[in-house]
Amino acid sequence: MDHEAFFRRQLDRLRAEGNYRVFAELERHAGDFPRATLLNARDHGAQSDTREVTIWCSNDYLGMGQNPSVLAAMHEAIDRLGAGAGGTRNISGTSSQHVLLEQELARLHGKEAGLLFGSGYMSNWATLGTIAARVPGCIVLSDAGNHASMIEGIRHSRAERQIFAHNDPRDLERRLDDLPPDAPKFVVFESVYSMDGDIAPIAELCDVAERHDAMTYLDEVHAVGLYGPHGAGIAARDGVADRITIIEGTLAKGFGIVGGYIAGSAAMCDYVRSFASGYIFTTAPPPALTAGAIASIRALRDADDLRALHQLRVSQVRRALEREGVPHLDNPSHIVPVIVGDPVATRMMSERLLSRHGIYVQPINYPTVPRGSERLRLTPTPLHSEADVAHLASAVGEEWASFKLQRSA
Amino acid sequence: MDHEAFFRRQLDRLRAEGNYRVFAELERHAGDFPRATLLNARDHGAQSDTREVTIWCSNDYLGMGQNPSVLAAMHEAIDRLGAGAGGTRNISGTSSQHVLLEQELARLHGKEAGLLFGSGYMSNWATLGTIAARVPGCIVLSDAGNHASMIEGIRHSRAERQIFAHNDPRDLERRLDDLPPDAPKFVVFESVYSMDGDIAPIAELCDVAERHDAMTYLDEVHAVGLYGPHGAGIAARDGVADRITIIEGTLAKGFGIVGGYIAGSAAMCDYVRSFASGYIFTTAPPPALTAGAIASIRALRDADDLRALHQLRVSQVRRALEREGVPHLDNPSHIVPVIVGDPVATRMMSERLLSRHGIYVQPINYPTVPRGSERLRLTPTPLHSEADVAHLASAVGEEWASFKLQRSA
Ligand SMILES: Cc1ncc(COP(=O)(O)O)c(C=O)c1O
Ligand SMILES: Cc1ncc(COP(=O)(O)O)c(C=O)c1O
Repeated sequence: MDHEAFFRRQLDRLRAEGNYRVFAELERHAGDFPRATLLNARDHGAQSDTREVTIWCSNDYLGMGQNPSVLAAMHEAIDRLGAGAGGTRNISGTSSQHVLLEQELARLHGKEAGLLFGSGYMSNWATLGTIAARVPGCIVLSDAGNHASMIEGIRHSRAERQIFAHNDPRDLERRLDDLPPDAPKFVVFESVYSMDGDIAPIAELCDVAERHDAMTYLDEVHAVGLYGPHGAGIAARDGVADRITIIEGTLAKGFGIVGGYIAGSAAMCDYVRSFASGYIFTTAPPPALTAGAIASIRALRDADDLRALHQLRVSQVRRALEREGVPHLDNPSHIVPVIVGDPVATRMMSERLLSRHGIYVQPINYPTVPRGSERLRLTPTPLHSEADVAHLASAVGEEWASFKLQRSA
Repeated sequence: MDHEAFFRRQLDRLRAEGNYRVFAELERHAGDFPRATLLNARDHGAQSDTREVTIWCSNDYLGMGQNPSVLAAMHEAIDRLGAGAGGTRNISGTSSQHVLLEQELARLHGKEAGLLFGSGYMSNWATLGTIAARVPGCIVLSDAGNHASMIEGIRHSRAERQIFAHNDPRDLERRLDDLPPDAPKFVVFESVYSMDGDIAPIAELCDVAERHDAMTYLDEVHAVGLYGPHGAGIAARDGVADRITIIEGTLAKGFGIVGGYIAGSAAMCDYVRSFASGYIFTTAPPPALTAGAIASIRALRDADDLRALHQLRVSQVRRALEREGVPHLDNPSHIVPVIVGDPVATRMMSERLLSRHGIYVQPINYPTVPRGSERLRLTPTPLHSEADVAHLASAVGEEWASFKLQRSA
């Protein structure tokens, strides 16, 4: 078999669909977020090699990746402990930074224990893959909108799986009613869904799960740092964190670095620590990252003002887009999706915003969102100014009009 | 179902088997590798809370995690670009550091392209999981000794799989002979096997694979940086890198940081980049890690002296153990396994080495190695002195005798 020809054919198909991706090569300017230099600007529709831009699609939602206390903690850890961890957690790779971070994560979520992974992807995949596989007869009930990393973890477990309608406690209830009462059940969902920005009815889902004695698993990747007391997420904001068996989060978005984790009972974390292949058989995260994460979590504990400013900028973006007649998905989160609905038009919009207006917002296409719902996904941060907001809205409004896209009333 | 009770029962079983793990909490001293302070020394058999130790089981094989040029590159990238990447590779997370590192990896292995992942685990799991799943009818032939991350990737793909006898080209050939000639085939193996330290007959495996028109996948995780011209690994040393379809490696061991990668044809890397869930749906590695990795790869390009010193220390450890009558697995690599053969005895040996001699070598037990082959796995580095070697050998010899373990002739 000519595998090279196979790979090339598949790539050609992507190109023909308009779904082939050319990554934007961005140099962020430390201390000057959300400004950056785009290094491959011609690939993205500009007339020049490079282009100064304002980033409007970062998941460093609060700009913590540029926070001085975070950077200082990383520098200090590098000087004191070196670059890498030097081994898996079990074989010489654990430092005090790892232990402290896991304690900090437990404290953040009001749980007995925390467990650190290399990424949010790994924490979802390894935890779901391990528990659903090893609890005998476990049946997983998975929200239809769940992230790829959760889907792959559930798939990997080979446990029986049912998909319940997105954010629909009644569909979940109907499905649970039909299952054998004594089968172990695992209800898996997210708090903030990243592409539509909608938020799960966590309390209602917990009501249903508890009536059926089911474990619950909540991905708070797009919420931690941003919502709730101390930035502990939506479950904490809603006062239901203690009803969730396992809370999962990332250190890469609100906290601005990289890494993933779970928090829950001491026995559960110890179990995953002891049995999850994706936790055991990989090098521990570098001490500098764990030190930076500790600093970021601590800085955000008392950052209610920053969280309020974030929400203010989000509502300013929404109102400004509405004044321009640009429709956006209404939702109660910080994510502002502007649906274009076609991969080629979305890419062209993105290129125009870049070349004419110095606005970088990556087109989101399949497989990240369903075909036909291609979009610009705007993520205002507290570091965007009011002038940035005004500039964004007028630019999007202008291009929206020039593309003759449907305007809102 | 009482899931808490389930988790606790499983943990009790581990404890009863002697396989429950308490991680050693180590503070490495930057600039003074392999010295460290063990912070939870009582958990590991010491009479004091902390214990100064010499690490003898790190996979930072060359001490690059403490290399000044690596640390300087990380500091510089943090100051210039910040902490995290701020997004997935596609959505604002790519910087020049990512692009340069992928080019550097391609150059290292003499391939058209390289592709960066968050860890070696992810690069194996995502690449094998994607290619074996998506190439229609693909049949995987997997070495019996392959690492968990490769096994899980193959398992995830749900492709048909056969396991061939470890390092046995003739068994591979027999199996390939029996397969339909036009089915796509994928031969998957490692160069240096990490627990026994044996090395694959790469050229012979390639001969067999080529006769059957099969793709080849080689994990060089325990070889990159350490062997071959410029540290490009065993395939490069043996002059057969161009015969391997996909070379996989880590940035966490010889290179001393964290991260994983593949190198191969431009179309193959672009294909994995475009279709692998574990590449697409996760935040990009922080610029500081990629900058550090570039510095480490470059520093090791011309480090033949360091590689020679590494091999010298390895042979000194072997000879010194032999003088003490301590048997070790003979192999042609830098890994010196001393088989104890029982989880409890291995742990006790490790605790004695620690408490009496200040030597930290983690006991390796199930599931990392098969039950009955529990071991101490010694990894000399060029930063261990001759005095360290003498101290290690006399300590292991003394404890070996006191445990009345079988001595070599
Ligand atoms: C809902 C959700 N879970 C998990 C992840 C993975 O987290 P990480 O980027 O830390 O791997 C993402 C996005 O990256 C996500 O959107
Ligand atoms: C053979 C092999 N492949 C892959 C890995 C995973 O690499 P990483 O630690 O970078 O995740 C390891 C060990 O950790 C390994 O021993």
